[in-house]
Amino acid sequence: MTILTPTLELACELIRRPSVTPVDEGCQALMMKRLEAAGFALEPMRIENVDNFWARRGSEGPVLCFAGHTDVVPTGPVEAWQNGPFDAQVKDGMLLGRGAADMKGSLASMIIAVERFVVDHPNHKGAIAFLITSDEEGPALYGTRAVVERLRARNERLDWCIVGEPSSTTLLGDVVKNGRRGSLNGKLTIRGKQGHVAYPHLARNPIHLAAAALAELAAEQWDAGNDFFPPTTFQISNLNSGTGANNVIPGELSALFNFRFSTESTEEGLKARVEAILNKHGLDWHIDWSLSGLPFITEPGELLDAIASSIQAVTGRTTEASTSGGTSDGRFIATLGTQVVEVGPVNATIHQVNERVLASDLDLLTEVYYQTLVRLLA
Amino acid sequence: MTILTPTLELACELIRRPSVTPVDEGCQALMMKRLEAAGFALEPMRIENVDNFWARRGSEGPVLCFAGHTDVVPTGPVEAWQNGPFDAQVKDGMLLGRGAADMKGSLASMIIAVERFVVDHPNHKGAIAFLITSDEEGPALYGTRAVVERLRARNERLDWCIVGEPSSTTLLGDVVKNGRRGSLNGKLTIRGKQGHVAYPHLARNPIHLAAAALAELAAEQWDAGNDFFPPTTFQISNLNSGTGANNVIPGELSALFNFRFSTESTEEGLKARVEAILNKHGLDWHIDWSLSGLPFITEPGELLDAIASSIQAVTGRTTEASTSGGTSDGRFIATLGTQVVEVGPVNATIHQVNERVLASDLDLLTEVYYQTLVRLLA
Ligand SMILES: [Zn+2]
Ligand SMILES: [Zn+2]
Repeated sequence: MTILTPTLELACELIRRPSVTPVDEGCQALMMKRLEAAGFALEPMRIENVDNFWARRGSEGPVLCFAGHTDVVPTGPVEAWQNGPFDAQVKDGMLLGRGAADMKGSLASMIIAVERFVVDHPNHKGAIAFLITSDEEGPALYGTRAVVERLRARNERLDWCIVGEPSSTTLLGDVVKNGRRGSLNGKLTIRGKQGHVAYPHLARNPIHLAAAALAELAAEQWDAGNDFFPPTTFQISNLNSGTGANNVIPGELSALFNFRFSTESTEEGLKARVEAILNKHGLDWHIDWSLSGLPFITEPGELLDAIASSIQAVTGRTTEASTSGGTSDGRFIATLGTQVVEVGPVNATIHQVNERVLASDLDLLTEVYYQTLVRLLA
Repeated sequence: MTILTPTLELACELIRRPSVTPVDEGCQALMMKRLEAAGFALEPMRIENVDNFWARRGSEGPVLCFAGHTDVVPTGPVEAWQNGPFDAQVKDGMLLGRGAADMKGSLASMIIAVERFVVDHPNHKGAIAFLITSDEEGPALYGTRAVVERLRARNERLDWCIVGEPSSTTLLGDVVKNGRRGSLNGKLTIRGKQGHVAYPHLARNPIHLAAAALAELAAEQWDAGNDFFPPTTFQISNLNSGTGANNVIPGELSALFNFRFSTESTEEGLKARVEAILNKHGLDWHIDWSLSGLPFITEPGELLDAIASSIQAVTGRTTEASTSGGTSDGRFIATLGTQVVEVGPVNATIHQVNERVLASDLDLLTEVYYQTLVRLLA
């Protein structure tokens, strides 16, 4: 029988709870029990149907917050799993199970690192906090976003935040995420006038009217990016017009498009520029806009330095700070003026069947979190 | 009880036969019986499931051929008709019923005009012919097109052809059709590479790639037309790309387009120019081309003069020769080197419920056909 390390033991306990979004299945109770024993003040925040909690040890600043989620994505076809998705185990050096990488492994590493840190440094500087939700993978309306609004309302100060999202690509610590691009969606409608192809002078073909404007939008340089972000990108994902008949000029064209935008552009600026191009081409248009998230960036500073040094010390690797990829709950926390960095295990198998992570990577991750605590709060 | 003129009597007899494409329901037998009595040699040509016939009176040239179709389009909702669609009758001066305008009225006028002409001019010059099909409104593969191929194979000479299609717009004879534009369809596919909107550098968006080429195609001047044709037009009728998801860059774009083209452009020339524009934009494209019909034109000459003079004499109107509108079987006959003109009643109600035509217009049309026979063959 294998004796597991404390981190892997706790990771298995969390994985065995089938907490598919938004249910928590007792994961947070387990974490809170451990944190309470480590001297944390606990504040469960159930908001609508979502379990969240806030925990804090220490009354002064600066505050280093660990953030993450106990919910996992659905398993997909259970028969495709080599082991049951919630039958956590370490096999051939791999920790197997839904959530192993995203992100119950990180949650276990945070708890073990903090437990060791408060034993070693019972009178640490500042404060340590946890912001944990059970709805990150779902609608995310009553999860981190809602908790952040409560913290903002009472002027809670968060200096630094480590989000446990699986940021590494091939080796633990090779990449951390120090920001995310913004995401802005538009549903564009161009109106023309329906008619028969034999009588085009009686119709106005929205495809013909729109083509030059779409070409201009596709060719536009929205910004040049900056040290932290690649240039803003614009992509039309869907374009539809026509009745199906080949002799009818359609009356309308519709398109869906998306911006992934850097901190060099703003939501309002992008909207105004799209609308100006459509107006320049004399189009009769309408856009339904929807913002998925504003961009945020954590520039090099105390937090990023502490993390990079810890990764270097633990793994010998020079980490790369990146803003690529999709969105995360970090975007909500960053609105508090917090430095936010995502540091977690390798993300190669997340959201897939047979999700897994190198077991020893979680012990290394615990060490990275521990050393970061030491550098910032010892 | 109203006493009908011979033309209206025969038109009613034809309308009462519910000859929806491709069935003939005895219309052609009725016509052939009358033509046989008038001294015509008959040649029924059933080709596949389509009844056609060829009839001729006189062994010399020049040959004046009357062409038309006995089939009609479906009735649509019968309850929307004020009278039954096949319950032919003259009411308030209008001949009512499916085919009244398109084109059983014209067939009746042709028969009555020819019967009178051969009585008045039993030893007329040249020859009179009929080319009648029961599949003009359908696929039209085994109708006029197939009969024309048989006539071509035996070197049958057709100098002039009057097609009975309803050419008039508001008053009988106001417009005759002395040609038609060509029609060329294309189904265009532009290939890209599918991907995620957050990683556009790993994908190739076919919408973005195609937009400038579509704009150029839409703006292109294909030709300037000529005395007989308006400029060639290009219309994209359908444009589709996208998976429905707003975060996926699609792998392919498809479009349907149509040319209506004048005799200033050729099928091969238009294809080459479209392909050159796509190549200039570096696109990975494929087009399935399909030609619906080549353009044809009957320039002013004996036939058009005879028809215009007859319309002037019968109605007092100066007719306008036009090439606008859709295609007709005239395009097949024109390939024999024949002068082809469409002369028929007002087309305002064709293919609609409550199809109807001014009863007196059919008597005028009989007179126009008669006078044209006189001018060309008396
Ligand atoms: Zn996650
Ligand atoms: Zn017709």
